[in-house]
Amino acid sequence: MRKIIFNAGPATLPEVVLQQASEGILDLSNEGISVAEISHRSTLFQNILAETLHLLRELLCLNHDHEVLLLQGGGRLQFAQIPMNFLSKETAAGFIDTGYWAHQAMMYAAYYGNTNTIASSQQKQYTCIPKATEFKASNGYAYIHLTSNNTIYGTQFHQIPTVDSPLIIDMSSDILSRIIDFDKIDFAYACAQKNIGPAGLSIAIVKKDFLARSNTHIPPVFNYQLLAAKKSNYYTPPVLATYISLLNLRWLKAQGGVATMEAINHQKAKALYAEIDRNSLFENNIQAEDRSYMNACFTMQSAEMEQAFIDFCEQHHIIGIKGHKITGGLRVSMYNAQTLDNVQQLIHIMRAYETNYMNK
Amino acid sequence: MRKIIFNAGPATLPEVVLQQASEGILDLSNEGISVAEISHRSTLFQNILAETLHLLRELLCLNHDHEVLLLQGGGRLQFAQIPMNFLSKETAAGFIDTGYWAHQAMMYAAYYGNTNTIASSQQKQYTCIPKATEFKASNGYAYIHLTSNNTIYGTQFHQIPTVDSPLIIDMSSDILSRIIDFDKIDFAYACAQKNIGPAGLSIAIVKKDFLARSNTHIPPVFNYQLLAAKKSNYYTPPVLATYISLLNLRWLKAQGGVATMEAINHQKAKALYAEIDRNSLFENNIQAEDRSYMNACFTMQSAEMEQAFIDFCEQHHIIGIKGHKITGGLRVSMYNAQTLDNVQQLIHIMRAYETNYMNK
Repeated sequence: MRKIIFNAGPATLPEVVLQQASEGILDLSNEGISVAEISHRSTLFQNILAETLHLLRELLCLNHDHEVLLLQGGGRLQFAQIPMNFLSKETAAGFIDTGYWAHQAMMYAAYYGNTNTIASSQQKQYTCIPKATEFKASNGYAYIHLTSNNTIYGTQFHQIPTVDSPLIIDMSSDILSRIIDFDKIDFAYACAQKNIGPAGLSIAIVKKDFLARSNTHIPPVFNYQLLAAKKSNYYTPPVLATYISLLNLRWLKAQGGVATMEAINHQKAKALYAEIDRNSLFENNIQAEDRSYMNACFTMQSAEMEQAFIDFCEQHHIIGIKGHKITGGLRVSMYNAQTLDNVQQLIHIMRAYETNYMNK
Repeated sequence: MRKIIFNAGPATLPEVVLQQASEGILDLSNEGISVAEISHRSTLFQNILAETLHLLRELLCLNHDHEVLLLQGGGRLQFAQIPMNFLSKETAAGFIDTGYWAHQAMMYAAYYGNTNTIASSQQKQYTCIPKATEFKASNGYAYIHLTSNNTIYGTQFHQIPTVDSPLIIDMSSDILSRIIDFDKIDFAYACAQKNIGPAGLSIAIVKKDFLARSNTHIPPVFNYQLLAAKKSNYYTPPVLATYISLLNLRWLKAQGGVATMEAINHQKAKALYAEIDRNSLFENNIQAEDRSYMNACFTMQSAEMEQAFIDFCEQHHIIGIKGHKITGGLRVSMYNAQTLDNVQQLIHIMRAYETNYMNK
């Protein structure tokens, strides 16, 4: 029996994608070869790569000003690769600090150049997103970096702020989950294992004029200009992860694309937060307008009560709701592949648990 | 109908591994979750990771002096990561130049420190491996780097040379294919997509005393000491590629381990080279004692004849024998997952083609 999986990433994937991936591992398109065996120089893979890049362009409404890159590794590799390409000891990058991942991005950048925090919600224990009115001056930076959705704290930028320097956004946990105007963003990146596909792959969307300013005196494996020129097939790409991501993008398009996903994601989050607010056992302390539609982070009265609820969920085949070790508590991740029905089932369990608890 | 695949990498995998991977994508161990969905912090993945590391230790006969690392990305990322950890502007690394990949490793290292070629077979068009007697002095280097098997030229170090500095070996294309004494090697590494599993993963075997001398003032994602301390679970590992690699290592052990593989690999290579030498249509110009057991690179009288033979093979469901674009010609890759029977079928086709040709 298939479980209901609320993992923060690697996260659940649509059943039809898993079915198709399973078939492709045995035999890709009746070609007598597994997708895990095809050469990255073969026509079979060229087609997979081209369709993946094309679907990302279509689903994200990109235009000729944008390059799309498929990259190996995850977000942390990008934390290093971005400053290698866009920062130096003579320049500075500005950071909007919304917690652990934003802070990690800054810590990595400091190996390559100067860093400065231009806004932070640390004083508020990261329970909100800094307001644009609270930003320090944002001009003169090589770039400003922010994390659009914060998986650990459960906050999200529902509006992308305007800044006076090139804008780089870590969209690892909300890419493809909502309509975004990429004309306002110079470089966006995301690891795959939340809204795209399996772990081991990342994507980047970069404005061509920003890309042209990158540092090219770095090892080729990190050089975005070179990787763009080689159409994401310079080093051997993670072929299998790319293929499963393609299957997921096809699924996403068949659902109606990003606008449809955004509507469903709103429904899921609205329903879950309503239950958290109503249910006497659960509490969410994130400022209402900054609550994440991807990760609802909430607590109970004690760690023991939380563990008991996690156990109760597992008895009902619901897994992956334990909070991150930094914050503790509970976390429910609702990326695109998570269905409204699954969220409703969790809500049902939350109600049943409250009833049981009250009647004890 | 399943093809016979002689790809240089990503390469063929055992059918039973593909079958098990296909099942794991649908449902891992009847847990109600796909292996592509499990958290890298879950017990399920901890077990996969621990067994993978354990099997690598067992199959490679490692001892307590060695650390084993699972790393994201492929060989080129290691070309950069190795000098970040072990080279500086104040030190030099020595390189044994056996062609394209050895040269790439040196080109990457030059971004981080000084490099020097201590031996090269370039003058002989890389048709042989430099003899130890031809080496320049090898003392005083931060490390000496060599590529144990050269996929593009079809040469292989059948003896690992002794040098007077720490020894680093790129074993991407012959790891696990033969018995190696890892006590003589300070750092060995290999991308997965030839003898280990799917693309998107690499492994490293490092002596603990050498690791202790690495530079730790580098971004954590590149820091071998940190990755070892985190037991290869610092960044989100490529979970699916790791799982399929584990399935392949289990298969390898069930076949009898590396010694058995080495014997079969000798049989395959011996049979194929004998046919190349006998057959009037094919020629291999590699010095006999340096011929690779993994990749036989050979030619016909013209590129047109080679293409006609490639087409003939494809009609008989044999693919992946086109040579690398640098050298042209033909290339037959015979990593562990390639069966003797498949090589015999190719030999049969080579004979049939010669007969057809002679009777034209």
